[in-house]
Amino acid sequence: MNLKDIGEFGLITRLAENCIFNKNEVLVGIGDDTAVLPFDQDNHLLVSCDMLIEKMHFLREMSSPFQIGYKSVAVNFSDIAAMGGWPTSILISIGIPKSISFEYIDEIYKGMKNICQKYSVNIIGGDTVASPDGIVINVTVLGKVKKTNLHLRSHAKVGDVVFTTGTLGNSAAGLQIIKNIQLDIPLKIKDYLLQKHLSPEPCLEDIRILNKIGLGLNALNDISDGLASEAWEIADASQIGIELYRDKIPISEETQILGQILKTSPLDWALYGGEDFQLIGTIDKTQFPFYAEEFKKEKGTVLFEIGRTIDIPGVFLINNEEKVYLNKSGFDHFG
Amino acid sequence: MNLKDIGEFGLITRLAENCIFNKNEVLVGIGDDTAVLPFDQDNHLLVSCDMLIEKMHFLREMSSPFQIGYKSVAVNFSDIAAMGGWPTSILISIGIPKSISFEYIDEIYKGMKNICQKYSVNIIGGDTVASPDGIVINVTVLGKVKKTNLHLRSHAKVGDVVFTTGTLGNSAAGLQIIKNIQLDIPLKIKDYLLQKHLSPEPCLEDIRILNKIGLGLNALNDISDGLASEAWEIADASQIGIELYRDKIPISEETQILGQILKTSPLDWALYGGEDFQLIGTIDKTQFPFYAEEFKKEKGTVLFEIGRTIDIPGVFLINNEEKVYLNKSGFDHFG
Repeated sequence: MNLKDIGEFGLITRLAENCIFNKNEVLVGIGDDTAVLPFDQDNHLLVSCDMLIEKMHFLREMSSPFQIGYKSVAVNFSDIAAMGGWPTSILISIGIPKSISFEYIDEIYKGMKNICQKYSVNIIGGDTVASPDGIVINVTVLGKVKKTNLHLRSHAKVGDVVFTTGTLGNSAAGLQIIKNIQLDIPLKIKDYLLQKHLSPEPCLEDIRILNKIGLGLNALNDISDGLASEAWEIADASQIGIELYRDKIPISEETQILGQILKTSPLDWALYGGEDFQLIGTIDKTQFPFYAEEFKKEKGTVLFEIGRTIDIPGVFLINNEEKVYLNKSGFDHFG
Repeated sequence: MNLKDIGEFGLITRLAENCIFNKNEVLVGIGDDTAVLPFDQDNHLLVSCDMLIEKMHFLREMSSPFQIGYKSVAVNFSDIAAMGGWPTSILISIGIPKSISFEYIDEIYKGMKNICQKYSVNIIGGDTVASPDGIVINVTVLGKVKKTNLHLRSHAKVGDVVFTTGTLGNSAAGLQIIKNIQLDIPLKIKDYLLQKHLSPEPCLEDIRILNKIGLGLNALNDISDGLASEAWEIADASQIGIELYRDKIPISEETQILGQILKTSPLDWALYGGEDFQLIGTIDKTQFPFYAEEFKKEKGTVLFEIGRTIDIPGVFLINNEEKVYLNKSGFDHFG
């Protein structure tokens, strides 16, 4: 059977079978943003990793080496934030073609060290090997989460408010700018969207604020594969349904303008674009107003109410009277 | 500057600068077989990772996919053993070319799951991505070590006995068989050495026995880059010297016979070949006889005394009256 037939998610399902040989050493295995392991009386240990391969995940002509390093760590920090935790350490494996200069690799590490310093995270190990073709980067991240702050995808309850922490579709819009480099796009818009695509920021400050507010935050996920896909992950894991309000999905002015220029609906970028690395989560509806108020007060930005959880399975887009069933879509790496 | 000029070890030294931004979260960072992190009252947490890239670290025509999977995990377990610990969890990132069949990937995972089951280790996460060229595998391993069992490279003391847990040079000999596939080599020898090269076994059983014996075991390292290189790592980290007794370096009959056939000294394979994954360590000389006796009793094999630590820096090979300064050599991936 070839991989296209089985698909990325079919492959992962198969590989994730029969992986636990010592139940005492694991709380949550494959299936959420990170694994959750026993740690001490107050905290769980979180672990996750991401592999980035040149030409598949980044292009040397489009990103600076500093940006490649920064983003490769940011996506891992985002996974820790999506569990309610804080990163503590990373390990970096890197495969390097012989043709690359020392200075280029050093710049990649400067980007990695910059984001590590920003969030007080240690680089504790890794592996440095030669690669016959392109650059390969694998970052493993470890983090900690207070037991009371752990938020799994499966924690949503019917009647919760569905929220997100920021505007969506910016990263996909930034990618469109790279793909349409010949187009005459206002510089301010270009810079803003390229920054969102090439140097995304993990929502660690947001999770710090949300954790302080109190009880009521239930499920949590980071938006790495598009809003539709992430909403489906929460709905499936929690065995509930989700209604998203079409008009309330936050889209930046920059992304809207680019949508007009390219005659594309920016809503598609928000739903299926991916790599925004905002958080999506659910909060008990009686607690949501308090969360929104405190979040605004602390951070100065809005906690966007974009939908609600329901007891009918599936994810739906609500537009006035209209209710549309949303496909999972999500990007299939072997499709 | 190109990478050949700076070299693998120069590059690693440079990248390992300024990596610690939160000292409370790390005990040992880059520089030993694994990082050591605070865990609970009795144990430290160990973390390490290894990246394997097709054509650089394995050839599809020479290894079965099961063997590739088994070995990629075994080398990580070996790093945990080299600290005195036991592995608990792994994460697997894999980059897969589109041309590969599902069954091939499934076989790699069967090899990984086989060794995980053997040592009761969980597979708790990973990443599955498409690769434009060859297969890329990154395994991250987590383990635990009792605080009293932690053995760093820097723990050797002058006057210790230097030991190894098994015969050396077998893996390099196995590689020679692959490179000289046309040669008529007795099947028994071929099978033995290929097995050692393609499916090495981590010394977890050995470390379990050594940990039970008591106090006196000081420095420890696994032999991944050849005896000379690993002895140098202990000598440098401990700021002592090491004398290795040429006649006492254990070499299997199979490796000796292959050396005769290929007219090569098997001692070179032991010193500079690498990938044997035996342990090298130092034990207080008053305790060594007890260790050797107990080890023999429990495991049925010999704990080989191969040298001693001295107060003159450097690593030396002793042959009767002759004392030769041993080069570090070790394999430079960018050389």
